[in-house]
This record gives sequence, C-alpha cells and structure tokens, in this order.
Amino acid sequence: MVKNANCKILDCTIRDGGLVNNWEFSVEFVRDLYYGLSEAGVEYMEIGYKNSPKLLKGGSAGPWRFLDEGFLKEVIPQKTDTKLSALVDIGRVDENDILPREQSLLDLIRIACYIKDVDKGIELAEKFHSLGYETTINIMALSHVMENELTEALQEIGKSNIDIVYIVDSYGSLDSRDISYLTSRFSRVLPEKTLGIHTHNNMQLAFANTLTGVDNGVTYLDSSVYGMGRAAGNCPTELLLSHLKNPRYEVRPVLGLIEKHMIEMREKWEWGYIIPYMITGMLNEHPRTAMALRESAEKDKFLDYYDRLTTPETSFGNKAD
Amino acid sequence: MVKNANCKILDCTIRDGGLVNNWEFSVEFVRDLYYGLSEAGVEYMEIGYKNSPKLLKGGSAGPWRFLDEGFLKEVIPQKTDTKLSALVDIGRVDENDILPREQSLLDLIRIACYIKDVDKGIELAEKFHSLGYETTINIMALSHVMENELTEALQEIGKSNIDIVYIVDSYGSLDSRDISYLTSRFSRVLPEKTLGIHTHNNMQLAFANTLTGVDNGVTYLDSSVYGMGRAAGNCPTELLLSHLKNPRYEVRPVLGLIEKHMIEMREKWEWGYIIPYMITGMLNEHPRTAMALRESAEKDKFLDYYDRLTTPETSFGNKAD
Repeated sequence: MVKNANCKILDCTIRDGGLVNNWEFSVEFVRDLYYGLSEAGVEYMEIGYKNSPKLLKGGSAGPWRFLDEGFLKEVIPQKTDTKLSALVDIGRVDENDILPREQSLLDLIRIACYIKDVDKGIELAEKFHSLGYETTINIMALSHVMENELTEALQEIGKSNIDIVYIVDSYGSLDSRDISYLTSRFSRVLPEKTLGIHTHNNMQLAFANTLTGVDNGVTYLDSSVYGMGRAAGNCPTELLLSHLKNPRYEVRPVLGLIEKHMIEMREKWEWGYIIPYMITGMLNEHPRTAMALRESAEKDKFLDYYDRLTTPETSFGNKAD
Repeated sequence: MVKNANCKILDCTIRDGGLVNNWEFSVEFVRDLYYGLSEAGVEYMEIGYKNSPKLLKGGSAGPWRFLDEGFLKEVIPQKTDTKLSALVDIGRVDENDILPREQSLLDLIRIACYIKDVDKGIELAEKFHSLGYETTINIMALSHVMENELTEALQEIGKSNIDIVYIVDSYGSLDSRDISYLTSRFSRVLPEKTLGIHTHNNMQLAFANTLTGVDNGVTYLDSSVYGMGRAAGNCPTELLLSHLKNPRYEVRPVLGLIEKHMIEMREKWEWGYIIPYMITGMLNEHPRTAMALRESAEKDKFLDYYDRLTTPETSFGNKAD
C-alpha cells in the first residue's frame, strides 16, 4: 500500500465557496456536485454551515449557511457512500438544532474556532460526539498563534474524544516548511489523533502544502472543485484526485463538473490567484481588505493597496497595532 | 546568511511568455519590464530567443524571437546590473550571429535541448563560452528521460565548461518528490556545477517545485511576471521576490508591472491554470494538443478532450504508440 492510500478527501466547495458567492448555489448544482463527487470517490462533501439564523444575521444567504434537515433530504434524495459534513462556528450554532445522527443526513460536524475558543470548541465537539457524529476541530489562523498557546490548546484537545484535528492555513501564508513544522508539532502532542489540513491558495501553495501534509502523515484533506473558496480559494479537488495513488479515485467526474458548472460560475464570481490576495498571503493577513478592494472601483490598484497595507501609520483595520 | 540568499532569479517573461502571444510585446513593455525587474533586484532578464530567421520559419514573430544587437540597444539604452540573457535552440541558431560578449548587450546564452542533442548543446555552449558568455544547458522534458540516458548526458556535461545546468519540467508534470530526486541526481553527477530550475504550472506546483529546488541547493531560478509563459505558465516572479530572504529583492516594482501591463495582457492572451493544461500535466504530456484545443470552438470541452487523450485507440498525435 502506498503511503497516501489511507487519505480521505473532504470537498468543501459549497461551504468555503459560499464565502465567494454568498451561498447562491442552485439545488441542481449542489446535487450534481454530490453525485459527481460520489462517482469520483470523494469520501466527504461539506454541504454548508449548520449555523443558526437566530444567532447570525444574514438570513438571506440561502439554505447552505443554515442547513435544515428537511431541505437536505430534498437536495440529496439518495445518499451514496460519500458522507456529508457541516461546519459550525463557535457562538453561531444552536446546539438544539442538531438532531441525533441517526435522524440526520449529516455524518460529520466540524467545529471552526480560533485558538482562544478551543475550550468552547471541545465542549461542542463532545456534545456532537455524544449525538453520534464524527467530529473535527479546525483551529483557524495558525499563523497568528504562538507556540505556548498552541501546545496548551492541543493538550486539551488530546484529552477530548474529538476524532480529527485540522491544521488550517486561513491566510494562505504558510509554505511547506511551515506545514512540516506544524504537522510535527501536532503529531507530537496528539499522537493518537487523526490530522487534517485546510489550505488557501494565496501564494499558489494550497495543493503543494496539502501534499506536504500528506508526506507528514496528515490524512484528511480539504479541497474544493476548481479551487472555489474564499478569496484565493482552496486546494483543487481535481488535483488531489489526479495525484493521490488510490484506485477509488477518478478525476473524470470532477472534470465534468467543472465543464458543466464551474467555468460559468468563475465568470460570475471571482476567486483564485489574484494579486491583492497574494499580497495578504505574503503579509500573513486576513484577506478581508483585499476582498473589499476587489468589490471596489480600485480593484486593480495593486500598488496603492500594497502601500496602504505596508505603511504602519495608515489605518487599514487589519493592523494589530 | 540564510540558505537561499545566494539564489538568483532569471525572469523569462519575454522568452517563455512569447510562446503565448507570438512575441507581440511592445518595446515600451519590454523596456518597462527591464527597468522594473532591475528595481526589484532581479539578477537576469531573458529578453528573447537568439535564433536565426534563416533557420526557423516564422520571421513574422517579431524581434524577440530573433534578437538583433542593434535593436536591443534601442530597447535598453542604459544597462543596469540586471544581466540580459537569450535562449537558443539546437539547429535554429546560426553561430555566426553571435558577437563576442564585449560587443553584445547579452551576458548569458542558454541552450535548450532534448536529451538526444546534449552533445550538440555542449559543443554550442563551448563556443559561446569562448566568446566570453556565461552559459547554461537546459535539458527539456526530463520527465520523459530514462535514468541511464540522463546519467550519461550529465557525465558529458560534467566534462564541459558549461556554467549552469538546468532542470526543466517542460510539461509541468513533476511534484516535489520528483524535483528532490532530480536535484540529488544532478548534484551527485555534477558536484562542481551550479544548478538551475525551470518549472511549469500545470498542476499549480511551479512555485512550490522551485522552492523544493532551492531547499535542495538549486540557485538559478526561472520565473515570469504574473506567471506568463507557455500554456499553464511558469513560477511567478512576484512570489519568488516576496518569499526569498534576500535584502536586494523588492516585490513592489513587479506589482507595479502587473498593474500597469499584465492585467490587460492576461485579458488579451491566455495562460495559467486552465483545465486542459492540468490534464496534460497530470498525463505527463506536451501541452500542444491542449493549446490547439484552447484555440478552437471546443475550448471548454474538457471531458471529450480527456477521453481522447486517455483512450489508446484514438490518434491524437501525442501518444507514443
């Protein structure tokens, strides 16, 4: 068996891609995606957020942000062996919305949290675990976390029954040395846990960093079709399918999804390697100012933008001081 | 001194990018590029091919394919410390066109050849070396070369006075393990030679593979601004400038070049991560059939294209059998 044969792909086109188009996905697209990914052998599809519209303003953002079991059953009339996952944010999920797993189409609930909320994340995960779900904790913005904080958080996670712990490069600012460092850190403190990785493509390293994760023993690999995800997007699902040595994977159905849907979607919505996102990646910052720039008439004024971000006395909102 | 402080960037936007737009670069653009790269600290700019219009049909392809010293002096009235290079192809260069280095604006002549022509490449390089030039030999399509052939060719190169030996991933089909393997192979047979790397971005690995080269001791790094190069393009110059730890590098002037020129150029001409190029990369094939597809009305018919390439009985021209 080759080294990466036990990897699992988790496609998050709908969930992370929804941050690009405010979740304006048609039911037809989501259904095609599910059956296409199934045919391709992808193990998990993250079909959206399971946040509560009562706790998060933005109820107009369609059903994929506030997944409802009844609606899900209409979208996916017949489940394949591709499992379904949903992401929840700390403080935005109402635990009472979550049915026991046997009454739900969902198999996996993933909890996204910043390092300061790891204790809350663990508490939530324990609850979802007791409802029968597989669980992950995804620690975001690791490039802004100091080692002592990280070690403490990982030790707490080690005591929990969380199944999978994710390394998340939220800003697309990490290179393969950083990924090697983080995976060795995580696996030293958490030798019993399965590790996952979620990357962003600001510096065209999303796929390469995912492969570096695989070389270092990470087995849960996030990706999205044609890379569709917030700002610079994610590791492309089609590249993982074509590269990993696992006979269950077939790239062809995903090429079909791109042909049928994604070319048109990319003309309508923007993601990928675009200079303002490259700039926030290289500066290790959240892409929010770059996303705002791309919505403005100044969208291609790279030099002005770069100067504002790199001049300490300007007040751009992103700076810590 | 950090490990990559002795790297040198060789920008080949004009030379490799010319394969995208048939060298339709304005003098203004080439001049801006030269002074912008100079300001950014880039060590070399490859300003075109030094092929002979007598030996290569296509005389309409502008001056960058058949560089002429008189014309070059108009384009670059004042040289900076960014050196100029030209590429030649075996069988397409007339040695009598090459002036002694002290009469030329060029500093470096690079010889591109397939493995079968390495002997001819060495002979040419020796001649250019005797005229005072720095020289490289760039062995193309390494992913189609067997190890015994490669070792023999490298041994011959080892006996020559060629300065720099390039690892070329012509088809964008190599990953970081392949690059590690090749660099260790090259440096074992050629311990005295400087190594270079030229990558293509078919699988979004051009930048990552270049960094893997650096980690393995490669110091001459090919790149192009905004990745402009044949088909999927090259390692982006702006990413190298932002990532390598060398105080001489400044990314800002290259962001300015992209803002001023490349966004518009990318609308007019096509390169980058495009599915047919991803397909030839994953299949380890020359992108010529994909380039033809992109020129046709079927340019987004990925499935048909994939099926034709992967069905042995079709005659697509690319297959060996």
